[in-house]
Amino acid sequence: MSTSRVEAFSDGVFAVAITLLVLDLRAPLTSGSLIGALADEWPEFAAFLISFTFIGVVWVNHHAIFHRLARVDRPLLFFNLFLLLAIVVIPFVTSLFALYVAHADSQASVAAALFNCALLLMAIGFQLCTLWIDYHPALLKSGRAPRSIAQQLRFATGVFAYVACLPLSFIVNPILVLAIDGAVGAFYIVDQVSGRNAGD
Amino acid sequence: MSTSRVEAFSDGVFAVAITLLVLDLRAPLTSGSLIGALADEWPEFAAFLISFTFIGVVWVNHHAIFHRLARVDRPLLFFNLFLLLAIVVIPFVTSLFALYVAHADSQASVAAALFNCALLLMAIGFQLCTLWIDYHPALLKSGRAPRSIAQQLRFATGVFAYVACLPLSFIVNPILVLAIDGAVGAFYIVDQVSGRNAGD
Amino acid sequence: MSTSRVEAFSDGVFAVAITLLVLDLRAPLTSGSLIGALADEWPEFAAFLISFTFIGVVWVNHHAIFHRLARVDRPLLFFNLFLLLAIVVIPFVTSLFALYVAHADSQASVAAALFNCALLLMAIGFQLCTLWIDYHPALLKSGRAPRSIAQQLRFATGVFAYVACLPLSFIVNPILVLAIDGAVGAFYIVDQVSGRNAGD
Amino acid sequence: MSTSRVEAFSDGVFAVAITLLVLDLRAPLTSGSLIGALADEWPEFAAFLISFTFIGVVWVNHHAIFHRLARVDRPLLFFNLFLLLAIVVIPFVTSLFALYVAHADSQASVAAALFNCALLLMAIGFQLCTLWIDYHPALLKSGRAPRSIAQQLRFATGVFAYVACLPLSFIVNPILVLAIDGAVGAFYIVDQVSGRNAGD
Repeated sequence: MSTSRVEAFSDGVFAVAITLLVLDLRAPLTSGSLIGALADEWPEFAAFLISFTFIGVVWVNHHAIFHRLARVDRPLLFFNLFLLLAIVVIPFVTSLFALYVAHADSQASVAAALFNCALLLMAIGFQLCTLWIDYHPALLKSGRAPRSIAQQLRFATGVFAYVACLPLSFIVNPILVLAIDGAVGAFYIVDQVSGRNAGD
Repeated sequence: MSTSRVEAFSDGVFAVAITLLVLDLRAPLTSGSLIGALADEWPEFAAFLISFTFIGVVWVNHHAIFHRLARVDRPLLFFNLFLLLAIVVIPFVTSLFALYVAHADSQASVAAALFNCALLLMAIGFQLCTLWIDYHPALLKSGRAPRSIAQQLRFATGVFAYVACLPLSFIVNPILVLAIDGAVGAFYIVDQVSGRNAGD
Repeated sequence: MSTSRVEAFSDGVFAVAITLLVLDLRAPLTSGSLIGALADEWPEFAAFLISFTFIGVVWVNHHAIFHRLARVDRPLLFFNLFLLLAIVVIPFVTSLFALYVAHADSQASVAAALFNCALLLMAIGFQLCTLWIDYHPALLKSGRAPRSIAQQLRFATGVFAYVACLPLSFIVNPILVLAIDGAVGAFYIVDQVSGRNAGD
Repeated sequence: MSTSRVEAFSDGVFAVAITLLVLDLRAPLTSGSLIGALADEWPEFAAFLISFTFIGVVWVNHHAIFHRLARVDRPLLFFNLFLLLAIVVIPFVTSLFALYVAHADSQASVAAALFNCALLLMAIGFQLCTLWIDYHPALLKSGRAPRSIAQQLRFATGVFAYVACLPLSFIVNPILVLAIDGAVGAFYIVDQVSGRNAGD
């Protein structure tokens, strides 16, 4: 099967998920200061920006991974579905985090851990897809080689980071989790999929 | 007419329907235990997972069916629309089921039966599409043959199972319906469309 | 400019609009009969089915029109946007109609007239697109001819019918409007775009 | 990387954003005059039309820009994401504007300024994309040349206009801002991307 339709379906899910995020931004009805009312909604705006960035970065990497393929097989379609499940859940865990981040108690830790779990799920989905491709090089375009162990490990950084974050949310601080998650997101802005100088 | 645009439109409907499911997950506002509040929402989470899986499996099978086609005709476009109608309804019957599954009385049976009806509608839509294709082999790519009677019956399993489920919801138990529906979904994860060794 | 991207964007709008319709179906929370509570929602279900069918038929005809094109120009992109505006409005006028159809007074007439106006807008959008194409045959695929006057008039049936319906909503009955609109929709299920035997 | 997938993803975001706008139109429940109740909602309808037009015009220009490209690189994907962020925000600032436009006080000025900021963000996103392409002509299709300075300045009109509008919202009138923004939108209906006679 060619890659075109799984790309189109995935693009649709990414596009809907990234656009639905705006439904969490509500125009506040106030008779006082509008600027003040919007400022009170800062967790919603921060959550919106973080989730938009995450889904955007994930889309770019999804693009880079499937760009290397000449065809897909049925198991890869289901691994990709698993990855999309994590994407679809991101708006939910984001609004959960936004709702509790200002709380000082353990609820914020739980919300941060759940947000982190969704990112972990997403990272696992990416691992399933890319490892399946590595061990089925017939799916690759001619001239493309499976990744080296070093490349595999580098791309698996997210899995390790998200697992490490889980206890930190309870031991240290939910905001630290957000900071680490943001750093991991920034790490994936740089291309971690193609080898250096591999062209594209 | 080529298959590309009907695939694009169907992919769009699948993508929106599968992503809209997340709108039924609501971040609970509680001053008590967040974990407890989320646990109370288990029917919503279960319904979300079941519907996501169902729509995902349906998409993979839709993909496999249209992948065999070289072109589409106008009646097939309308049979496909009928199938999409069932897909669009799934988020609604899912949230209905989630709302009543915890009730012990006959309402849960009604909700399970309606959920089951949507799946039956979907299975009928698939039958309309695939049987139309079988009797119009000019739509197939060159080298593809219409399905054998055995393949037709095997793919029609869902219709029989969903019809059989309808009375069970009232006689036995709505949860049993869900279990059978889940088993049917798992059955369709395995490729029931292409013949064995038919390549793809 | 090739037709592929305007088709993809239009497919996206059609797919989102047709799937958003389900958001108007709400799982009723009742301690009485669930069947009864759902039966009370019959206007929502009827409106859902009518709008789904309308958008579906419009998509098939949109498909047939753009299938004849080799390229698009900038004015056609804007005429197509006008058509999409009417599509996007359909879920709104549908829920308006569903809300007032059971009222016996003049409000139902107003709601029916507004529903009808959206369909008229859509028909005008189709006319703008198809007439523009007729007078710019360079947009057509080689071997395709502009439509005859007879074909143009036949395809313009909807415009005349929707205009005629507007006063009927107030003079006779809003339900009559719905019946006529339904008949017009059924008329367009049959191919009114390509000439007979024109192949496709 | 070819342009097809970034176009498909962008088309998805445009299609969802333009269709989500209809969710802000609510069927009013009134026992009085339905026409009157709808007339009271005029800011919602005006905002809907303005935002639909803006997103539509932006889509046409996005189409014209990417149509000139033979390939995309990773930075351009992220500049495009930035542009899409502005698109996704438009439904939110639109409903904010609709909520406060009828207020005579400074709140309407704040809402107009925020609406204007989203348009400015969008114009900056367009500048990032087009300037990146100008300085990386290897991305262009063969036979296409980077824009002249005159073309660059002409396309940058929006940035200057939106910046100039910001203080006007507070000094003069929020409605003036809307009028200027509308004029800028109309300016971009005419092709400001391709050079004259450049064909397409």
